[in-house]
Amino acid sequence: MFEKIVEAANRLDGIAHKTPVLTSTLLDELTENHIFLKCENFQRMGAFKFRGAYNAISMLSKASRNKGVIAFSSGNHAMATALACNILHIPATVVMPADAPQVKAAAVQDYGASIITYNRLRESREQIAQELMDEFGYTLIPPFDAEPIIFGQGTVAKEFIEEVGELDYLLVPCGGGGLLSGCAISAKYLLPDCRVIGVEPAIADDATKSFKTGALQVNKTPNSIADGLNTTSLGKITFPIINNYVDDFVTVSEEEIKAAMYFLWTRLKIVVEPSGAVALAAYQKLSVKGKRIGVVASGGNVDVKTIGNLFLGI
Amino acid sequence: MFEKIVEAANRLDGIAHKTPVLTSTLLDELTENHIFLKCENFQRMGAFKFRGAYNAISMLSKASRNKGVIAFSSGNHAMATALACNILHIPATVVMPADAPQVKAAAVQDYGASIITYNRLRESREQIAQELMDEFGYTLIPPFDAEPIIFGQGTVAKEFIEEVGELDYLLVPCGGGGLLSGCAISAKYLLPDCRVIGVEPAIADDATKSFKTGALQVNKTPNSIADGLNTTSLGKITFPIINNYVDDFVTVSEEEIKAAMYFLWTRLKIVVEPSGAVALAAYQKLSVKGKRIGVVASGGNVDVKTIGNLFLGI
Repeated sequence: MFEKIVEAANRLDGIAHKTPVLTSTLLDELTENHIFLKCENFQRMGAFKFRGAYNAISMLSKASRNKGVIAFSSGNHAMATALACNILHIPATVVMPADAPQVKAAAVQDYGASIITYNRLRESREQIAQELMDEFGYTLIPPFDAEPIIFGQGTVAKEFIEEVGELDYLLVPCGGGGLLSGCAISAKYLLPDCRVIGVEPAIADDATKSFKTGALQVNKTPNSIADGLNTTSLGKITFPIINNYVDDFVTVSEEEIKAAMYFLWTRLKIVVEPSGAVALAAYQKLSVKGKRIGVVASGGNVDVKTIGNLFLGI
Repeated sequence: MFEKIVEAANRLDGIAHKTPVLTSTLLDELTENHIFLKCENFQRMGAFKFRGAYNAISMLSKASRNKGVIAFSSGNHAMATALACNILHIPATVVMPADAPQVKAAAVQDYGASIITYNRLRESREQIAQELMDEFGYTLIPPFDAEPIIFGQGTVAKEFIEEVGELDYLLVPCGGGGLLSGCAISAKYLLPDCRVIGVEPAIADDATKSFKTGALQVNKTPNSIADGLNTTSLGKITFPIINNYVDDFVTVSEEEIKAAMYFLWTRLKIVVEPSGAVALAAYQKLSVKGKRIGVVASGGNVDVKTIGNLFLGI
């Protein structure tokens, strides 16, 4: 499947940013490993999600493009879909809860997408989206469980490994598994001996349980500060890929996520969202020394006006 | 004097970070110019100050090194002196107000320096430092008004221009003028046609007034959110250099500083302190289009727990 990721990389060439890889003497000293941080917080719209959304949307037929696309998300996937459609001159509709963060709704609007709001307690976003698709012929862009999305996200690890070379470990955060499954395909193709580790918040560990039991597990009420990882389960497509290509899973506590995020903000001086700090938080669970560890910092979209509250206990 | 900056660069080679230069499609579109951001917030200890302090301290005689150094500062210069001494195995004493930010005092202590606290309202830090120098033979490391400091800071512009090449403008924040005078020497040597612009908060505009009147002006109570630029005046050494090498000064309002800082945090995803955002805030005062503008983002040391309050009005 790696050739599909190469095709995605070609589509993204000159459109998505080739994000920088940061290293830190301090981080290496503290961890006694050599840590490479792939900074997808510097990606366009602030997260890796742009890669998958753009790859999927750019593959649509002319007829589908003319009718437009629809996505439902209160977060990065909404922004990614809106930006990709803006670039490709395709009409986009995003179904967002009425109480979605104001900054994210504003970003979606800035990118020119139409927003349909709904009441999260009384209405179903799937039903609203389905009605719009039936009426207007929109194509649904799913957040993770579709091959073009997965192959787009896989370009993260491809680009990362092409820049840094050998890695002993690759740590990737896991929500619905789009980023993890795509990155695992790239890593296992380019570096067969690299151990690919999925990382989840301990209080949203459905994928870890699915991986360990071999049967898809659902967590109906995940509630981590890493809001991008609060998906209820892996997908029908991501789960088998993860089973085949991922070596292990690790979970981290909410306190460990906060501490990793605080370190990235105060010592590396980069703005990373809680989900984006989850993979770094996991290095200590490996109990290894002297290894080359790749860490995907997946995004940086937070409300900087209120984020400090998260750090008050540190 | 540029050869002194080359010597400083040699001393700093392999010790200071060669900080990255960031660019942003969005920033270029918004400003209708091509903006290059020299990210000294990614420098060791989080600000350019490390360059000057390390350069000055590494030039001390063996006898002076053995006795140790002293600095008074509540901010980045204290951290820079402490870190440089840590690397060079030289005893360091830092005189800090008792109400200095806890994070900065902790950093100074982590680097192994001794801290002498004083009451800002009742005691004089100069007198305390003088007494310690008399008793123990410490060498004072001034924050800006000394040639080795200025030449160290000048390596910022040298490195910047060597990486990006031609620049039509170079925007540099100005407090005591160490960074600005050093950068102006480098820029005028490497790019004689580049216009070097000093940038100050409008409510701490002593250097602007000194430059425009040709006579050293003092502002006894500067009180900008850009705390690193709240110096009362240029120095005896920095003022003449600035008069000779700088082309113009621009001032920015507190609101403009906040807006530039908010943009850097939310769109470029980097942690920059208010003083570090001042130069970016100034691009709009140039009223130019299609130019290559170098901007020095001088540092990133802020208390991320409380910084959000600064953005509440945006």
